[in-house]
Amino acid sequence: MLGRVNHIAIAVPDLTAATASYRDTLGAKVSQAQALPEHGVTVVFVELENTKVELLEPLGDASPIAAFLEKNPSGGMHHICYEVADILAARDQLSASGARVLGSGDPKIGAHGKPVLFLHPKDFFGTLIELEQV
Amino acid sequence: MLGRVNHIAIAVPDLTAATASYRDTLGAKVSQAQALPEHGVTVVFVELENTKVELLEPLGDASPIAAFLEKNPSGGMHHICYEVADILAARDQLSASGARVLGSGDPKIGAHGKPVLFLHPKDFFGTLIELEQV
Repeated sequence: MLGRVNHIAIAVPDLTAATASYRDTLGAKVSQAQALPEHGVTVVFVELENTKVELLEPLGDASPIAAFLEKNPSGGMHHICYEVADILAARDQLSASGARVLGSGDPKIGAHGKPVLFLHPKDFFGTLIELEQV
Repeated sequence: MLGRVNHIAIAVPDLTAATASYRDTLGAKVSQAQALPEHGVTVVFVELENTKVELLEPLGDASPIAAFLEKNPSGGMHHICYEVADILAARDQLSASGARVLGSGDPKIGAHGKPVLFLHPKDFFGTLIELEQV
């Protein structure tokens, strides 16, 4: 089921500072910041050779990463996104095995404009997993 | 400085159960478990198309992931490992920029038999970063 690691998402309290750190201290290629109000985050892409890191800062009053940053004020790794070929088939297989899909269970259009689902971290040893159909 | 994402490390309290979950529920290719007593962990490699996830379970009395699992009993994402071409040059550049290298500052031989360093998570927004010379 799992294809490529599409990205590793890192929640940060200060996107400007984090971007400077990855660009200047770690010498990585970083994108411009993109506000995604419908997803409640502003994102910067850190382009690595084989995948990317997404630095996420909360945007708006109902950001999905606000609670995480309350618990982890310095920031931290938030989720891993894996690519899947068929997200409905993946969902049905996961549900049949007892794994919990967050929300309604229907894929939503994610930050890259593609269908995504999130899996309950309690079913995967504390790791929040995003699946994205590519 | 940063090359490929070599791996994403996930600490788990029960490696057998976590391996079954990634293999059977998520349909990923997983390795046999390898005990690495000199590193205080037992590891299973989850092979993705472009990188790998390493599932880590504590081994022995002085495991470097024991404290993390005390704080996160269900498990969770522990660190990201990036490849670098020259670990001494990377260290010197990082130190000059004020980033803290953990331990003595001298690279150690990591779990893959290559020189590694860890960077202080407080300097990188809560993310523990490993650098591995490839």
